[in-house]
Amino acid sequence: MALKPPEAYQQRAEAMRPRVFMNGRRVERITQHPVTRTVVEANRASYEWALDADGEGGRLFTRPSHLTGERCNLYNTLNRSTEDLLQRAGAGLYAAEHLGTCIYRCVGCDAVNALAATTFEMDRDLGTAYYGRLMEFLRLVQEGDHTVAGAMTEPRGRRDQKPEQWTDPDLSLHIVGKDDRGIVVNGAKINISGAYATDWTIVLPSGARRPGEEAYAVSFAVPNGEKGMTYICQYTPYSAERESAESVWELGNPRFGQRETSMVIFDNVFVPWERVFLCGETAYAGKVVTRFAQVHRMVCGGSCKVGFGKVMIGAARLIQEYKGLAKAPHVNDQMTEMVTLLETVRACSKVAAIEGKEAVPGSGVYMPDDLLGNVAKLNIGDAFWRLMALAGDIGGGLIVTMPSLKDLKNPETRAYVEKYLRFGSEAPAEDILKITKLLQNWTAGLHGVGTWHGAGPVQAQKIMVQRLADYEEMKRLAREMAGISVERP
Amino acid sequence: MALKPPEAYQQRAEAMRPRVFMNGRRVERITQHPVTRTVVEANRASYEWALDADGEGGRLFTRPSHLTGERCNLYNTLNRSTEDLLQRAGAGLYAAEHLGTCIYRCVGCDAVNALAATTFEMDRDLGTAYYGRLMEFLRLVQEGDHTVAGAMTEPRGRRDQKPEQWTDPDLSLHIVGKDDRGIVVNGAKINISGAYATDWTIVLPSGARRPGEEAYAVSFAVPNGEKGMTYICQYTPYSAERESAESVWELGNPRFGQRETSMVIFDNVFVPWERVFLCGETAYAGKVVTRFAQVHRMVCGGSCKVGFGKVMIGAARLIQEYKGLAKAPHVNDQMTEMVTLLETVRACSKVAAIEGKEAVPGSGVYMPDDLLGNVAKLNIGDAFWRLMALAGDIGGGLIVTMPSLKDLKNPETRAYVEKYLRFGSEAPAEDILKITKLLQNWTAGLHGVGTWHGAGPVQAQKIMVQRLADYEEMKRLAREMAGISVERP
Amino acid sequence: MALKPPEAYQQRAEAMRPRVFMNGRRVERITQHPVTRTVVEANRASYEWALDADGEGGRLFTRPSHLTGERCNLYNTLNRSTEDLLQRAGAGLYAAEHLGTCIYRCVGCDAVNALAATTFEMDRDLGTAYYGRLMEFLRLVQEGDHTVAGAMTEPRGRRDQKPEQWTDPDLSLHIVGKDDRGIVVNGAKINISGAYATDWTIVLPSGARRPGEEAYAVSFAVPNGEKGMTYICQYTPYSAERESAESVWELGNPRFGQRETSMVIFDNVFVPWERVFLCGETAYAGKVVTRFAQVHRMVCGGSCKVGFGKVMIGAARLIQEYKGLAKAPHVNDQMTEMVTLLETVRACSKVAAIEGKEAVPGSGVYMPDDLLGNVAKLNIGDAFWRLMALAGDIGGGLIVTMPSLKDLKNPETRAYVEKYLRFGSEAPAEDILKITKLLQNWTAGLHGVGTWHGAGPVQAQKIMVQRLADYEEMKRLAREMAGISVERP
Amino acid sequence: MALKPPEAYQQRAEAMRPRVFMNGRRVERITQHPVTRTVVEANRASYEWALDADGEGGRLFTRPSHLTGERCNLYNTLNRSTEDLLQRAGAGLYAAEHLGTCIYRCVGCDAVNALAATTFEMDRDLGTAYYGRLMEFLRLVQEGDHTVAGAMTEPRGRRDQKPEQWTDPDLSLHIVGKDDRGIVVNGAKINISGAYATDWTIVLPSGARRPGEEAYAVSFAVPNGEKGMTYICQYTPYSAERESAESVWELGNPRFGQRETSMVIFDNVFVPWERVFLCGETAYAGKVVTRFAQVHRMVCGGSCKVGFGKVMIGAARLIQEYKGLAKAPHVNDQMTEMVTLLETVRACSKVAAIEGKEAVPGSGVYMPDDLLGNVAKLNIGDAFWRLMALAGDIGGGLIVTMPSLKDLKNPETRAYVEKYLRFGSEAPAEDILKITKLLQNWTAGLHGVGTWHGAGPVQAQKIMVQRLADYEEMKRLAREMAGISVERP
Repeated sequence: MALKPPEAYQQRAEAMRPRVFMNGRRVERITQHPVTRTVVEANRASYEWALDADGEGGRLFTRPSHLTGERCNLYNTLNRSTEDLLQRAGAGLYAAEHLGTCIYRCVGCDAVNALAATTFEMDRDLGTAYYGRLMEFLRLVQEGDHTVAGAMTEPRGRRDQKPEQWTDPDLSLHIVGKDDRGIVVNGAKINISGAYATDWTIVLPSGARRPGEEAYAVSFAVPNGEKGMTYICQYTPYSAERESAESVWELGNPRFGQRETSMVIFDNVFVPWERVFLCGETAYAGKVVTRFAQVHRMVCGGSCKVGFGKVMIGAARLIQEYKGLAKAPHVNDQMTEMVTLLETVRACSKVAAIEGKEAVPGSGVYMPDDLLGNVAKLNIGDAFWRLMALAGDIGGGLIVTMPSLKDLKNPETRAYVEKYLRFGSEAPAEDILKITKLLQNWTAGLHGVGTWHGAGPVQAQKIMVQRLADYEEMKRLAREMAGISVERP
Repeated sequence: MALKPPEAYQQRAEAMRPRVFMNGRRVERITQHPVTRTVVEANRASYEWALDADGEGGRLFTRPSHLTGERCNLYNTLNRSTEDLLQRAGAGLYAAEHLGTCIYRCVGCDAVNALAATTFEMDRDLGTAYYGRLMEFLRLVQEGDHTVAGAMTEPRGRRDQKPEQWTDPDLSLHIVGKDDRGIVVNGAKINISGAYATDWTIVLPSGARRPGEEAYAVSFAVPNGEKGMTYICQYTPYSAERESAESVWELGNPRFGQRETSMVIFDNVFVPWERVFLCGETAYAGKVVTRFAQVHRMVCGGSCKVGFGKVMIGAARLIQEYKGLAKAPHVNDQMTEMVTLLETVRACSKVAAIEGKEAVPGSGVYMPDDLLGNVAKLNIGDAFWRLMALAGDIGGGLIVTMPSLKDLKNPETRAYVEKYLRFGSEAPAEDILKITKLLQNWTAGLHGVGTWHGAGPVQAQKIMVQRLADYEEMKRLAREMAGISVERP
Repeated sequence: MALKPPEAYQQRAEAMRPRVFMNGRRVERITQHPVTRTVVEANRASYEWALDADGEGGRLFTRPSHLTGERCNLYNTLNRSTEDLLQRAGAGLYAAEHLGTCIYRCVGCDAVNALAATTFEMDRDLGTAYYGRLMEFLRLVQEGDHTVAGAMTEPRGRRDQKPEQWTDPDLSLHIVGKDDRGIVVNGAKINISGAYATDWTIVLPSGARRPGEEAYAVSFAVPNGEKGMTYICQYTPYSAERESAESVWELGNPRFGQRETSMVIFDNVFVPWERVFLCGETAYAGKVVTRFAQVHRMVCGGSCKVGFGKVMIGAARLIQEYKGLAKAPHVNDQMTEMVTLLETVRACSKVAAIEGKEAVPGSGVYMPDDLLGNVAKLNIGDAFWRLMALAGDIGGGLIVTMPSLKDLKNPETRAYVEKYLRFGSEAPAEDILKITKLLQNWTAGLHGVGTWHGAGPVQAQKIMVQRLADYEEMKRLAREMAGISVERP
Repeated sequence: MALKPPEAYQQRAEAMRPRVFMNGRRVERITQHPVTRTVVEANRASYEWALDADGEGGRLFTRPSHLTGERCNLYNTLNRSTEDLLQRAGAGLYAAEHLGTCIYRCVGCDAVNALAATTFEMDRDLGTAYYGRLMEFLRLVQEGDHTVAGAMTEPRGRRDQKPEQWTDPDLSLHIVGKDDRGIVVNGAKINISGAYATDWTIVLPSGARRPGEEAYAVSFAVPNGEKGMTYICQYTPYSAERESAESVWELGNPRFGQRETSMVIFDNVFVPWERVFLCGETAYAGKVVTRFAQVHRMVCGGSCKVGFGKVMIGAARLIQEYKGLAKAPHVNDQMTEMVTLLETVRACSKVAAIEGKEAVPGSGVYMPDDLLGNVAKLNIGDAFWRLMALAGDIGGGLIVTMPSLKDLKNPETRAYVEKYLRFGSEAPAEDILKITKLLQNWTAGLHGVGTWHGAGPVQAQKIMVQRLADYEEMKRLAREMAGISVERP
C-alpha cells in the first residue's frame, strides 16, 4: 500500500544529513534540534492523519493515485476535479487547525500540480517528454509515500533592474552546465518552508522568463541534502525561545511551533535529466509560476488561515469567559467581527475551488478560479492583521507581560502566580497562562508579516485581479443602463 | 401556461386603483405617474425575462411549480434544493444588473418561502391547516402569474420599551377583530418596496412574539389596494428630479430609477381566513422572520448588490478610459479594490446557497446557510459605501457639478458643453454626461443608506453572527493546541 | 467703515445680470431663482456675522486691513500670523456649522493670499509690479466689502497627454491676445463655487507650467458677468427638489442648500492690466497653485468639514434619543467613532495653522504647514464617507423612505404620518421628519463625492505628502537604532 | 545642582537588591542580567540627555523645580502650563525615537502630576495634608534626581462581579493594617514598566472607588525592593533571544530592547505616613486615575508612538531603497499612508497639550485636553497595527525568514549570506540584515498588543470619548439648521 506509517518517515528523517546551519552553528541532526524537529513532527502528523482510514483524517488526506489507483497521501496526488480542489482546501484547513503552522508538504503538492498541467501542455505543444518524467517522479514519491517540499522565491537583485543588469547572475537560480546526464545549477532559493526535512524538493522558476533567459527557465527535483546544497535557517526570537525552553509546553505553539524556513543554496548542484521538468522553454516558466500561485493562493489565502483564525477565536473566547466578559457587548462585537472575517475568507476559498476548471484541456489537472484565489489571499492579508489586533485586545496586556510558565514551578513564585493570574475564574493559572501564551504566539509574533508574504505579497495579487477582471462586461452593463447604444472609445 | 406576457401584468396595473399619496398629493394612476410607473416597468421586465425561453432570462427566472409541474415565474415558486437557491441568487444578480434597482417581486418570494417552511412546521406540530392554505394561495398566484410584494418592517415605538408599554398599540400591526369569515387588522408597515403596484402583498410579523402578544403574531395576504389600505410614498430629491424631467434619459437610472417604497397603512382591513397564514401562534412568529431574513440576506446581501456594483465599476472604468487614465497605477489600484470587494460578496452569497439546507425536515423548502447570509450582508454594507467612495473618486467632481443633459440641447449652451465636457476624448459629451449621471445616481444618492437598511440593519446581522458562531469547536481547537486536556470554566 | 451691511450686498446681487444657465434654461435673476438665491443668502450671512461686533461672529469674521488698518471682513484680508490662520480656520468652522454648505467667499480669500505671497516673490525676483496691483485690487474690495470667488479647476484634455497634445488648446484657460490695455483670455473653469453671485472672480492657473506654456500662466480678476462670460450651473436631484418645493422647510438644508457650482466659460474675455496678476511667468504658476492648496486644504480638509460633521452627529444623536436608544451600546459605539473622527480632523487642521510659517520671507503672508494640511484633507476624505455611513445607520431606513413634509399638511394623510412616524417619542412627527430630512441631505446626497474632490482629489494630497515627508531624518533614526554608523546607498 | 550624572544612577542601580524573578529563576543583579539591564540603560539615557545643557536633550528633559527653582529632570517635575505639556510630549517623542522602547520614568512622572492636582483638591475640600507630603516627596526625588516608576493596573477578579464578590480580596491592592506609623498593604500590580530598576515606585488606585471600598482607595510611594515586595518579570520570545545572544547587535533593538514589565507583589508591605497620598477617601480615587490617564494618554497615545513610527518608516524606506523600489508607486502609496497616520496622531497629541487646562483651580497643575488625549490614543491603537502591516509588507518576507547575524560571522555560511541577502544593492548584507532585524522587532513582535493596552485598552478610551463629547451643542446646531425652534425630548 502507498500509505506508509509515520515511523517510516521518522526513520528516513533520522537518517537525513543535510548541511543545515542555524544561528551561526551547524545543525547536525534535524530530528533532535528543538527547532528543526518541529518540521519533522508536523510532517509526521500528515502520516498519522492519513492512516485514520474511517475518520476525517483519512477522508481529507488520502485519495487514489490516478497512476496506480492506489490510495495515496493527498499531498502526492493531482487535483483532478473541483471535488478534489475542495478536498485539497479542506485538508489545508484541517492541518492548520491541528498544527497551528505549515504542513510542509503543501508547497510541493501545489508545485507538482502546476508542473503536471504545464508539462502536459509543453509536450503537446513542443513535443517534449517532460510530462512522462514528472509522472515517473510522482509514481516514485507515491510508492514511497515521500515528503516533497517546493522552492520558488529567490533573492533577486534590484527591482528596478532587469536580471541581465544584475552584477551577480546567481541572484536567480540558473543552469550553469549541461551534458547528457543532466544539468548543473547555481543560485539560491529563499523563504523555503521545511525543505531540510523533506525527502525531496521541487524547484520552480521564480517568474516569467523572456527569450534570452533560457538558463533561468528551469524546474527540477532534488533529494534531501544533495551534494552542493546548504540550508541556512531563519532565526527569530521564537527560535531562541524554543532552543532555551526546558519543556515545549512553556511555548506558544508547543508541539509544532512556527513555520520554519531556510534559505537553500545551490552551489553547482547536479540534477539528472529524469528529474528535470523544464529546461530553457522560457514561454512556459511564467505558466508554471501562475498555476502554482493559482492553487497555492486558494489554500494559503483561504483554508489554512481559516484554521489558524479558528484557534485564535477559540483562545480569545476562552479569555473572554475566564474574565467573566461573555456578555460584554463590546467584546462580543469584536468576536462577531472575527467570525465574519473568517467566514468571508472561507467562502472565497471555497468558491475558488467550486469554480475551478481543467487547467489545460486534456491534462486532467484542475485549478481553482484564479480571480477568487487572489481575492481570498487579498482578504486574508488584511483580515489576519485585524484578527491579531482583535484577539490581542481581548487577550489583554498579559499577552505581552505574562511571566514564564516556569514561574508556576518555582516554589518562590508559584503561589503568587497562582493567586494573581486567574482573573477570579475557577480555571487554574496554568490554563490561563497557556491560552495567553497561545495568543502571544498568534498576536505578538511572526504571523502578520508571514501571512502578507506567504504565497506572494499583496501587490502580486492586485496585479492578478486587475488582469483577470472582466471590465468589458461591466462597461457593457453601464452603457446599457445609461442608454448609450454605441461603443465609443 | 403559467407564464403570462408582460402585457397581462401591464393591464392589471392599469386597472389598479390603490389609495396612493406622494408629496402631498394623490397619485391617481400608478402607471402614469413618472415615479410610480418605474415600479411597474421593473416588474414588467421580470415577465419579459421569463419569456426568453432559450436564453439566460428563461433559465434564471422560470422553474417548474412543485404543485402543478408547470413552468412558473421563479418569484412565485419555492426553493427546493441548493441548486434552486443558486438560481434564486443568480436571478437577483441578473435583475440588479439590468434594473439598477429592486425587482419588486423579491420580498414576496422570500416571504412565501419563509411561510412555506413555517406553516409546514406549524401544521406538523400544532395540527393547524396553514400550509394547505398557503399552497392554495401559491397555486393562485402561479396560475395568474401575479406579482406579490412582501411587508415586514413596522414603525414601532421607543426601542427601550416593550410593545405593551407603547402608548399606541397600532405601532405594530395587530389583529383587532376576528369572526368566522376572517380577521380585521390595524397598523402600518414602513419601507415597503413597490407594494402599490403588485397584485398582492404578503404581510409578515415584524419580529419574535412572546405569549401575551398573540394579536401581533399574524401573517396574511391582501390584494392590491384592499379597502382600508393607504400607501404613502417616499419622496426624495430623486423623486423630484424624475417628476420634473422632460425625458427619462436625463436621469441617472433612466428607465427604472430608485427603489420606490411606501408606508402602507392598514386601517381596519379585513382578511378572510383563506389568506391568513399565522394567527396567534406566538412561538412561530420569530421563525417566519428569521427564515425570511435567511433567504433575503443571501440575495440582498450578496447577489443583487453585486449586480449594482458591476454597473458602478463599469461606469468608473469608462470614465477612467475617457480621461486617458487606463494605465494610471493609483486608479487601477482603486479598480482592483472594487473588484475584490464585489467578488468577496459574491463568494459569500454563493456559499450561503451551496451550504443551504432543508429548513424543516420534510418541508422540501431549502434555506441558505444563515451564518454566510449574514456575513454577506455585513460585508456588502461596508463594501457598498466603499464602492461608492471609490467610484466617486474615479468619476470626478463632475458627478456633483455636472450640468443637466438639457444644457446639451439648449442652443445657447450646447457648444460650450460639447467643447468642454469631453476630457479630450473622442466620445461625445453626451456619453460622458450620461455615464457621469449614472455615477451620480450610484455614488451621490440613496444607495449607501439603502444598502445599510435593506434586509435589516447592521446590528441585526451582528446579533445573528454572534448567535450562530460555533465557539465551542473553536475553544476545543485552542485548548488542544495549548495542551489543556480538561475543559474547565 | 469697511464693513457694509448685508443689504448693500443684496442690492448689488439684485442688480447683477450675469449670463447664467441651469437645466436648459436661462436664469434671469439670481436672487429670485430658488437654487441660485441660496448662494446669495449664504454670502449675505457672512455680512451679518461680521456685524456682530461683540459676539463670536465679529471676532471670527473681521480683522484690520494691513493696508488701511480699518476693520474688514476676514474674507478680504491676508493671513499675517499663525493667529490669523487659526482665525481663518475658526471662521470656516463657524460658517459650516451655520450654513451647512460653502461660504462662497472662501476660495477667493485663499486665492488672494496665495497671490499675495507669490506676487511679492515675483516682484522681488523679477522686478515685476504685480504685488502693488494686487494690493490695489484688495484695497478696492476691502473698501466696498465686495465678495470675491476663486476659479482654478479646468476641463483639461486626456490625462495621458501633455497640454500641447490636446486637440483643443482652450481646454486650459489661456491668453489669446494682449495689448497695452490688457489681455484677452479664452477657456473655461469648472466646479466653480458661487461665482455667478459674487462681485468678483479671481482666476488662478490650474497647475504648474513649463517654459513654452507662457500663455497658460495667467491670473487675474474679473467682475461679475463680464462680457464674454457664461455660467452653466450644476443640476442635481437636489436642485430639482428645491426648484419644485413649495417651501424651503420641506428640504434637507432649508435655507442654504447644496454647494452650488457652475462651469464658467471665458469666451474672448478682456482683462485690463490693473487686474492681471500673472502673465507668462511660468515658474510661478505652480507656486500660486501650491500656496492656494496649502491654505485651502487646511480649511476644506479640516475646519469646515468639522462643522458639517457636528451637524450630522447632532442629528444622529437626536434620532437616537427619539428612538429611545440613548443607552444602546452599539449606537453609542458609533457615536464615539464619529466624535473621534471629527476631533482627529479638527486637530490636524489646528496644528496646520499653529505650525504655519511666512510663505515668502518679507511677504508677511502666512501659510499653514503644508504636510498637516494635506494630512487633514486625506483624513477627512475617508472620514466623511464614514460619518455618512454611521449617521445613515443611526438615522435609519426612513432617511431614504420618508414621505414629503407635505404629507403632514395633506388632510388625507396627516393623521397617519403623525401617528406612525414618531417612534413612540413625544416629539411631533414634524421634528422627526425634519431631522431625518437633514440626515438625508448629509448621508444620501452629494457630500461624499463633494468632499473627495473639493480642494483637490485624494491623489493630489498623497503626492504632496510623499514630497513633504522628511524620510532622511527617519532613515537616520532607524540606522542609529540598528547600529549602522555609515550611511550607505 | 539637582541634575545628577548618569553614573550616580548607575551606582544606585548596582546597589539595588530587589527580589526579582524571571523565567523560573532569581535575577540577582539587575544591572547584569541581559534583559533587566536594558531598563537601567534606558533610564541612564535620560540622565545623559538632561546634561546636554545647550542641546535638544537639555531643552526637552529639564525644567526648573517649582519648589526650589533649581533645574531638574523633567520627569521629576509638574506640568504647570500648556508649554510644559508641549515639552512633556516632546520629551516623550525624543525618548521614543532614541530608545525604541519606554523611558521608565514616564509613568511615575504622570502619576505625580495626577496626585499633585488631586491632593491639592483633597486638602482644599477635606482639610487633609496630603499635598504637602507629596511635595516633600517630590523635593526629595528632585534633590536626589531619583527615578520613579508608577503602578496602577491590577489583576482584578471576574469583570462581571463587583470587588466585594471576588473570593480573594487581594485581587485589588488594599490596606490591611494601619497604625500611627503608617499603613500595611497587600495585593499586586501587573504590567508595571521597569519598577525593579527605579529608585521609587508610586502606587495609584486602579479605578474609581465607592463608599465601603475605603481600603482600596490608597496611594503611596515605596522605595525599590521594599520588604515584602517581589517582582515577577514578563518573559517573551524576545527575552529568550536576548538572554541567549552573544552580542546585543544581533538583536532587533540592540541597546534598549523591549518594554520590560513585571508583576509587583505587595505581601504585607509597610508604608510610613509620610509617603501615603490617599488613604480611604473613596471620592478621590477615580479622580487620580482619570487625571493620570489624561496626561498619560497624550504621551502614550501620541508622542512616544510617533517616535516609534518614525523609526519604522525610516527602516521601511531604507529597505525600499536597497531594493531599488524608491519610485515604485505602490510602495510610495504605502509610505504616504504611514506618514499620514503618524502626522495625524502627532497632531492629536499636540492639540491635547495646547488645549490643556489647570486641572484644579489654584493647583497650578496643567492637564491636557481629555477628549483629544483619548482620541489620540484611539487613533494610534489602530494606526500602529497598520504601521506594522505596511512596514511589514515593504520589509518583505525576510523579516520572518532572515537568518541570524551570527551566520554572517560563521565562515561556513558568511559568503552565502553576503552574496544572497543584499537585493543587489551596494550596501553590505550586514546593514540589510540589521535593518530587517529592526523591522522584525517592530512588525513581528510585541508592539501591536503592547500599544493596544499601554495607557488603557480601547474600550476605556471609547467610554471617555462618549462621556466628554458635547452632544448638546451638536444637537442645537442640527435643530437650528433643520428649523426646529423648540427643544423637545
